[in-house]
Amino acid sequence: MQEAVSMSAVVMSERVSRLGSSIVRDLLATAQNPNVISFAGGLPAPELLPELGELKVPAELGQYGETEGDPLLRGLISQHLRSRGLDCPKERILVLSGSQQGIDLVAKLFLDAGSSVIVERPTYLAALQVFRLLGADVRGLTLLAQGADARELTQLTGSCAARLAYLVPTYQNPTGITYSADVRRVVAQALDASGTPLFEDDPYAELRYSGPATRPIASYLRRAPWIYQSSFSKWFMPGIRLGFLAASEDLFTPLVRLKQASDLHSNRIAQWLAVRELSDPGREQRLERLRAAYRQKRDAFACSLYAARRPILLASAAANPRSDVAVAARYRARRSVRPGRGVFCWARACA
Amino acid sequence: MQEAVSMSAVVMSERVSRLGSSIVRDLLATAQNPNVISFAGGLPAPELLPELGELKVPAELGQYGETEGDPLLRGLISQHLRSRGLDCPKERILVLSGSQQGIDLVAKLFLDAGSSVIVERPTYLAALQVFRLLGADVRGLTLLAQGADARELTQLTGSCAARLAYLVPTYQNPTGITYSADVRRVVAQALDASGTPLFEDDPYAELRYSGPATRPIASYLRRAPWIYQSSFSKWFMPGIRLGFLAASEDLFTPLVRLKQASDLHSNRIAQWLAVRELSDPGREQRLERLRAAYRQKRDAFACSLYAARRPILLASAAANPRSDVAVAARYRARRSVRPGRGVFCWARACA
Repeated sequence: MQEAVSMSAVVMSERVSRLGSSIVRDLLATAQNPNVISFAGGLPAPELLPELGELKVPAELGQYGETEGDPLLRGLISQHLRSRGLDCPKERILVLSGSQQGIDLVAKLFLDAGSSVIVERPTYLAALQVFRLLGADVRGLTLLAQGADARELTQLTGSCAARLAYLVPTYQNPTGITYSADVRRVVAQALDASGTPLFEDDPYAELRYSGPATRPIASYLRRAPWIYQSSFSKWFMPGIRLGFLAASEDLFTPLVRLKQASDLHSNRIAQWLAVRELSDPGREQRLERLRAAYRQKRDAFACSLYAARRPILLASAAANPRSDVAVAARYRARRSVRPGRGVFCWARACA
Repeated sequence: MQEAVSMSAVVMSERVSRLGSSIVRDLLATAQNPNVISFAGGLPAPELLPELGELKVPAELGQYGETEGDPLLRGLISQHLRSRGLDCPKERILVLSGSQQGIDLVAKLFLDAGSSVIVERPTYLAALQVFRLLGADVRGLTLLAQGADARELTQLTGSCAARLAYLVPTYQNPTGITYSADVRRVVAQALDASGTPLFEDDPYAELRYSGPATRPIASYLRRAPWIYQSSFSKWFMPGIRLGFLAASEDLFTPLVRLKQASDLHSNRIAQWLAVRELSDPGREQRLERLRAAYRQKRDAFACSLYAARRPILLASAAANPRSDVAVAARYRARRSVRPGRGVFCWARACA
């Protein structure tokens, strides 16, 4: 019944021309190849996913809920953030349908075509995808061993009037780099000085394999507006698509409205599961077991890479050529492996 | 520690200036007033929400899933659509995090600032919100008792080169109007003639209280591209935020990529519940009970409105002034109530 219509007849939005191929989907497709062991996707180990057992889900969760999220969950998230050093009342916690949604909402809040956004070089691919979709001018910021190059950040905020700085300061995706406390402080000072809003993405902090605990950069800010987001995906489970953000006062209300226009509110069963998990006294013990199991995996992975004799296919450089090539040339060894203190392990191969 | 920063220092996106107040949130706020019985929100009756009982959720649902949705669910949705007269293979079914997400994705696919989009006058408020957020030029289409004015649609598609026609042809929100089969046919012809893409929003069709079954307008099309979407909110439960769309071939892939950038994929427990529900042999019987219960409510509601002696506060006209005032003047009766064949009941009050 349906005849083909030539695509030239259909006028799509300008942004669709920037949609390109989905990098994350391409990585997952590569992972389907039985000859490939893919570490590119950041998937939790299946054997470490929690057993849910028999769930007695209250029928009232079937009804529409609040856009901001379940009040009980928002309170628990506010407490959790306080324990991490970030003070944010529950009234400024927004529950997300996964932290990818946070990227979509914050990009909608700040970016027009041509707006500058500062990102680490390299950075999370799916964030780049969203920023580019909106036509943003993506400005790369050099990552050093202790975190972003703060001097370069000061230059960038001065020269390009960036609408936003998107940073992943803890166990950064994909480099595994963690900003030191000193770098966090000077980064915060640079953002305060220029008034550049910070978008801090922090999904991995709970999975700390080694080194000291980190404090969000947002907690160092005195003046600049900020959004801090995290996720239940890495330490609880990704299949429920649940994350959250905290934001400074002026940013919160427009973010709630953007969320409302995007999906009304997040799945209530997922929120109910998250309430159970966050209020469970056994949680810290479970996290310790998770950290120990992942630490062992990280070490086995790093050792195997050092010892490997066969060529290793590294997926990220090809996907994000602009950001990688220059830095890779600095390395003299045939390959270099830098296991992080958290979920990511960064390896480079020279041409 | 956080000092207030004056908003003038922060540059947000141009679209945020069009964000305005959220109409749906305002309606829900009105509903909190104990002196108000609000029928504006389209909430399912709490006593008709399904009992979920004890759920034995498989642990593998905790893992990331496919952007397109669970393959089993996509197959069941494809079958369901075939039973409604719309042929779409499961490969072109995209599971959504509620049908509000479908509006966001389709708007992203088609609309730039200044693009024309045709909508019924009046139409669903949260769709208007998304279209206006993107800066679209919203063109109203007159609704007659049997559906959209097809002659006006032909003029509109000819004159404004609309990127999209957003229609809710079955138990329309908010008027309750249902397009007749004849109007569906001529609307499809008008869209085919101009090649204007159809975005058919059909969340209410399962709750048919009276009258013949309807067939999607998309199933009448021969040439124009189309997206058809529906939801699990009205006949199953809204709290799980689950919907789906079917699309013609050229539109499907960019929609999947836009979904991937928005939230990676939808909640897998919700999808698993939807698989159970759609494959349950008792489903049709349950739907019949739902329809009977809501039919009774509709009739009681309409009778009460006819008989009411106290002033009735009608919420929709104020929220969407452009679309309502002209039509309201045609009514001579002090008030007019038009119960639809489905979930919406349209009442007008003259000034």
